[in-house]
Amino acid sequence: MSPRRTPAAPRTTKAGRRPGGPDTRGEILGAARKTFADNGFTATSIRAVARAAGVDAALVHHYFDSKDELFIEAMALPVDPRAIAAAILDGPPDELGRRIATVFLGVWESTDDGRQRMKAIFRSVVGNDEVARMMREGITSLIIEPVSRSLGVPDAHLRTSMVATQLIGLAIARYLVGLEPVASADLPTIIDRLAPVLQHHLTG
Amino acid sequence: MSPRRTPAAPRTTKAGRRPGGPDTRGEILGAARKTFADNGFTATSIRAVARAAGVDAALVHHYFDSKDELFIEAMALPVDPRAIAAAILDGPPDELGRRIATVFLGVWESTDDGRQRMKAIFRSVVGNDEVARMMREGITSLIIEPVSRSLGVPDAHLRTSMVATQLIGLAIARYLVGLEPVASADLPTIIDRLAPVLQHHLTG
Repeated sequence: MSPRRTPAAPRTTKAGRRPGGPDTRGEILGAARKTFADNGFTATSIRAVARAAGVDAALVHHYFDSKDELFIEAMALPVDPRAIAAAILDGPPDELGRRIATVFLGVWESTDDGRQRMKAIFRSVVGNDEVARMMREGITSLIIEPVSRSLGVPDAHLRTSMVATQLIGLAIARYLVGLEPVASADLPTIIDRLAPVLQHHLTG
Repeated sequence: MSPRRTPAAPRTTKAGRRPGGPDTRGEILGAARKTFADNGFTATSIRAVARAAGVDAALVHHYFDSKDELFIEAMALPVDPRAIAAAILDGPPDELGRRIATVFLGVWESTDDGRQRMKAIFRSVVGNDEVARMMREGITSLIIEPVSRSLGVPDAHLRTSMVATQLIGLAIARYLVGLEPVASADLPTIIDRLAPVLQHHLTG
């Protein structure tokens, strides 16, 4: 993620809009969470978040480079999905399955904090329709669509989404439900099981 | 499921144990849900459920043929997992993947009631550790283990559990989260995508 810019002195804003205060960034994130939840990722604009926060759109842009970045911060994602997409696409197409398995499981297994955040996200996606909608739209836009475009086949979007189903189920079985022996198998074993199946979804 | 036996007049029970009343069956199911949740499927016995319900074990046996049946009723499963296992195993091994996809998705797609019950079960498994434990133990015993035994290879249990991960993720993406185009693809398309991947998990 790009380094956060230091907040400058708030500029004069239009009548009725609050200038930036000490917790302006936090208030913008709160408004973003609500707006993404109400309208989904696709229909949410920086302008709509600014309106919900009662600040000028320029002030939102002051703290966040783009809608994507606002989403990543508002959802407390442990990694930047754009970096995930880039890592997946960086290599030969016939090893896509293995790269996807390695990158995805790396998010869960590299730090305790990352795993806890992923568990919280998965639980709210499954338990809450609004969270489900914003996450599926956000992840579709930031990961599934770039990977689909790289495949260059007509049914690419279905293929990439089937990969997502296998990853979602693996994560739930291994990290949330504790289904054995998937839960305690070592990481290389799981990657070896996943890689050919993900590759089949993409190019089989 | 076997047809329910008509309740007979309650027999005399040991001191301190209530004889069967008009809602005895419902009370036994409530006690079973609590006992399965507290102790998991594996460690729960008919005797323990009877103790929790304050009735004689013979009375539990009067209403329910076995612990398996008590579990199926207590969890309000829309189908009998033993029938699922039998349907999966009834056919040539090289078509296992297709039969599993067809049978599993049939549970979700044949009736509205079945789909609603499955959604409720999935949400509680992901949201609640006790429900997760009893369901994973129950499904392991009633479906995963019989299918694993039929494969007759050393890593059969891991292979069958990997099939479960793909099915869990497909169901969550299609029915709970609405991930497109998986959510609105027609059933034969989804089965065609799943079948070779499930077969690879089992015998690839």
